[in-house]
Amino acid sequence: MEKGSCSALCDAIKELQGLLGEDAISTDDEDLREHGYSEWSTVNIDALPIAVAYPRNTEEVSQIAKVCTKYRVPMVPFSGGSSLEANFAAPFGGICIDFAFMDHIIAVHDKDMDVVLQPAVQWMELNEKIKHTGLFFPVDPGPSAKIGGMVGTSCSGTNAFRYGTMRDWVVNLTVVLSDGRIIKTRRRPRKTAAGYNLTGLFIGAEGTLGIVTEITLKLAVIPQETRVGVATFPTIRDAASTAMQIIRAGVPVAAMELLDEVQMNVINRAGAVSRRYAEVPTLFFKFSGTTAGVQDNIRISRKIATANNAEDLIFAKNEEEGKALWTARKEALWSMMSLREPGSEVWSTDVAVPISRLPEIIEISKKEMDELGLFASILGHIGDGNFHESIMYQPHEKAAVEHVVHRMVNRALEMEGTVTGEHGIGLGKKQGLVKELGPETIAVMQTIKKSLDPYWLLNPGKIFDYGDVTLTKDISEATAASTLDHPQR
Amino acid sequence: MEKGSCSALCDAIKELQGLLGEDAISTDDEDLREHGYSEWSTVNIDALPIAVAYPRNTEEVSQIAKVCTKYRVPMVPFSGGSSLEANFAAPFGGICIDFAFMDHIIAVHDKDMDVVLQPAVQWMELNEKIKHTGLFFPVDPGPSAKIGGMVGTSCSGTNAFRYGTMRDWVVNLTVVLSDGRIIKTRRRPRKTAAGYNLTGLFIGAEGTLGIVTEITLKLAVIPQETRVGVATFPTIRDAASTAMQIIRAGVPVAAMELLDEVQMNVINRAGAVSRRYAEVPTLFFKFSGTTAGVQDNIRISRKIATANNAEDLIFAKNEEEGKALWTARKEALWSMMSLREPGSEVWSTDVAVPISRLPEIIEISKKEMDELGLFASILGHIGDGNFHESIMYQPHEKAAVEHVVHRMVNRALEMEGTVTGEHGIGLGKKQGLVKELGPETIAVMQTIKKSLDPYWLLNPGKIFDYGDVTLTKDISEATAASTLDHPQR
Repeated sequence: MEKGSCSALCDAIKELQGLLGEDAISTDDEDLREHGYSEWSTVNIDALPIAVAYPRNTEEVSQIAKVCTKYRVPMVPFSGGSSLEANFAAPFGGICIDFAFMDHIIAVHDKDMDVVLQPAVQWMELNEKIKHTGLFFPVDPGPSAKIGGMVGTSCSGTNAFRYGTMRDWVVNLTVVLSDGRIIKTRRRPRKTAAGYNLTGLFIGAEGTLGIVTEITLKLAVIPQETRVGVATFPTIRDAASTAMQIIRAGVPVAAMELLDEVQMNVINRAGAVSRRYAEVPTLFFKFSGTTAGVQDNIRISRKIATANNAEDLIFAKNEEEGKALWTARKEALWSMMSLREPGSEVWSTDVAVPISRLPEIIEISKKEMDELGLFASILGHIGDGNFHESIMYQPHEKAAVEHVVHRMVNRALEMEGTVTGEHGIGLGKKQGLVKELGPETIAVMQTIKKSLDPYWLLNPGKIFDYGDVTLTKDISEATAASTLDHPQR
Repeated sequence: MEKGSCSALCDAIKELQGLLGEDAISTDDEDLREHGYSEWSTVNIDALPIAVAYPRNTEEVSQIAKVCTKYRVPMVPFSGGSSLEANFAAPFGGICIDFAFMDHIIAVHDKDMDVVLQPAVQWMELNEKIKHTGLFFPVDPGPSAKIGGMVGTSCSGTNAFRYGTMRDWVVNLTVVLSDGRIIKTRRRPRKTAAGYNLTGLFIGAEGTLGIVTEITLKLAVIPQETRVGVATFPTIRDAASTAMQIIRAGVPVAAMELLDEVQMNVINRAGAVSRRYAEVPTLFFKFSGTTAGVQDNIRISRKIATANNAEDLIFAKNEEEGKALWTARKEALWSMMSLREPGSEVWSTDVAVPISRLPEIIEISKKEMDELGLFASILGHIGDGNFHESIMYQPHEKAAVEHVVHRMVNRALEMEGTVTGEHGIGLGKKQGLVKELGPETIAVMQTIKKSLDPYWLLNPGKIFDYGDVTLTKDISEATAASTLDHPQR
C-alpha cells in the first residue's frame, strides 16, 4: 500500500473513525466544500480536503496527527474560517481538522488576568462571557474570527495601536506536533525569559509547525470610559498628518482608523448610525481610560485635528452609538460584500509600511484603485502603518484588479514594508513573501519547518512551498532526512 | 588534523588573524578571563574561551562563523557582560565574539519612530543620543547592559509593566547563522504577519541559534511629564494589594517597584537622595504621560495606597531627585555589591509567577531568606509578577544560600511560574528549565537548535545540554545528521 495514495487515505479515515467514532469524521461533499472554499478569500483553488475531522479534545487531535503521520496525510486546522489569503485551503487534500467542538473556555483566572480556552472560542463571545470580571481580551479582528485562527495568522485589529497584536497577548499554547506529541510552550507567568520563545514561533505559523489545541491569553482591564469620535478632513494627507501628530504628542488614544469616502458611504447606507456623515476622508478615534484621562486625550486630539483642517470632532451621542459606529467600521468588509453587484467577487488585502510612509502609499494606491472605476475602498490602521484595500469586481475584471493589488504590494516592499500586516501569507502571498524576505531567510523558515514536520504534513503549501528555495549544503546535509517524502506531489 | 582539537583551534585562530588582522583576535590571558568570568554571576566555571575576536561589521562576523564551522570551534557572543546566569561563559572554550567595535547607531528614523544599531550600543547611551528626537527606547535593564545581550536574554526592567519586554520592541534582526550565512529576519514595518516570527525566536535564544549583528528597535514618545513617588507600607502584603488594585483600576502607571526594608536601607546609605526614607516595605511609582493624565493617575493611586495602610505618597521634590531615586532602584545590585563584606560573593536571581501569587511567594521567600541571617534583599517588578533576590554570602555559606534559592525557584514552578522572568537560563538555570517545561518541550527547542546549528557550535551548553533529552524516533530520524559531532566533549 502506497502511503499518501487514495487507499491510504481511505485507511486513514477508517482508522480515525474507529478511534474517534463514525460521526467525528465527515466526508460529506457540502462539508468538504465549506472547509476548502471561501467567498471572501483572495484566492480559491480546485482542491478540497478529503475529510473533515471534529475532535473533542487535545488527545483526539493527537490521535489524528498520529494516524495522519502514519499514512502521510496532510492536516489543515480550521476554526472561524474568516481568513482572507486561503490560509485554510487544502491544495494537497488531506484532512481538515475543525475545532467546532473545542469551543470551551476552560478557566478564567480573574486575579491573574488570564483565561485558558480552546481554539473555537470566538473573540467577541469571549469578551461577552468574561465581562463580569471587569476584564477583556483586546485583539479585535473581523467579528467572526476565532482564537485558534487568530493565533495562526498572528492577527490584530483596530485596538493594535494601543494594545498590540496576538503576539503580545498569548501566554502559552498547547500544541500537537506533526507526529502526535503534545507540548505546552510554557507555564502561566505573564513574563518569562526561560528558553526559546516557542509560543511566539507557533503564533503566525498558520498551523504549519503544529496544531494549537489550547491557548492561555492575557486579559486587560476594561477602561472606565470609552468614547468614539469622528473627524472629517479635506484630504487623506490631512487625516494622516493628524494621526502622526497625535502619536508624537504621546496621546494614548485607544485606536485611530482612517476611512475613505467610499467607506463612509457604506456606513451611511448600512444605517446603523443616527446621523449621516460626510463622505470624505475620515478618522475614527477611540478614546479610553479614566474619565479625566479621556477628557485630556480628547482635548489634545481635537486641537491637533482642527489645526490640520478637520471639521470639528463629532462624538457618538452615547455609548450605544459609539459601539454602532465602531462595529460599522469593523464590519466594513461584510457591509461592502452585502452591497456588491450580483456575480461580483471581492479582493480584500493588506500591507504595512514604516509609519511615515503611510500617507504616500495610501494616496498613490487609492488613486490607482479609483482609476479602476470599481466599488472599492481603503481602510487604515493608521497608527500601525497598516491599511486594507477592498475591491469588488466582476470575473472579467480580475486581471486589472490583480495588477493594482500587486502594484500596491510591491510599493509597500519598496518602502521597506511587508506584504501583510495582519492577514498572513496563506496561499495568496507566497510570492510576495519571497520578494519581502529573500531566499536565505525563507530557507531558515523551511529548515525549522522540516525539523518539526519532516513529512511536510501540517497545512502544506502555505507560507512557502516545499523546496522552492535551496538550502545551503551544510545545513541540508545535517538536517535533511533520507526518509523525507512529500505528500501527494 | 582532528577538528575541534587544539591544533584545529590554533589553525582557526591563525586563519582568522589572516582574515581580520592580527589585532582582531586576542589570546591575552587577562582578556580571556574578563570574557569568561563574572563577579556577579550566580555560576562561574573553570573553562575560559581560548580567544576573543573583535569583529568590526556583520561581514567579519560571518567570516568568523565560517572559520569556526570549518574547524568546529564554539562561538560565544559578548556585549555588555552584565548577565547573571553565566550566559556568556565558555564551558567548551572556543572563541568569544566581543562586539566592542560594533557600537554604532546606524540610522535614526525619527519619523518612523525606530532606530537601527549594532549590538554593543548601551541602552542608556542610546537614549542620551536620541533625546533630541523626543523619542526613547523604553526597555531598562541594569545600567551596563547593551542591546546585543538584551536581545539574547529577552530582558526587561522596571518599565516592562507599561512598555513590555525586548520581544515587544525589536522590529528586525540581522543574524549570522552558524555556517556564516547572513539573514535579516524581516523588514521595517512596526507590524507584520508575514511568515514565521524569526525575530521573536532569536530574541531570548542567548546566541544559541545565531549571532545578532544588527538590530532595529521601535522607539516610544518621551512622556510630557514624569513623576516619581514613594509609598511605605507596614507589610509587603499591603504593598502588593495596593499594586494589584491600581492595576485593576486601569491606572496606566509607568512603573511600580516593590523594595524591601533592606533595599531602602541600601538607598539611604548610598546617599543619592535628599531625604532619609523609612526602612520598611516600599512601593516606588513612576507616573508619566500628559500633565493632566499624570495628575489623574496620582490621585487614584494615592487613594488606593492610603486605603491599604500606606503612609502618604511622597514625591521626589524635582525631576532630578526623581531620576536619582529611580537610578538608586536600578543600581540596587551594584549598590549592594559595593556595601558587601570583603571576600563575600553574590547570588542575584529572579523568578516570575502569575500575578495573584506574587505576595505569597515573596512573603515565604523573604522569610526563608531572612532566616539565613545574611545581607540580602528582595526587589519586585510587581506588575509583572516578577521579583529578584540578591544575597551576599561568604564562600562557606554557599550551600545554605543555594538551598534557599532552589526552594524559591521550585515554589515559583509550583505556582505555574517560571524559573526566570528576565535573566535567561544561561548555565545557571538549565535544571530549572527542565523542571519548568518538561523534556518534550525542551526536545522541540533542541530540534530547532540542531536544525540551525547542526554542529552545536553557537554558545554551546547554554539553555539546555546537548542530547540530555531524547528526541522521539521519528523526529530524530528525520533531523539528526550522521555527521553531527559535538565540540570538545
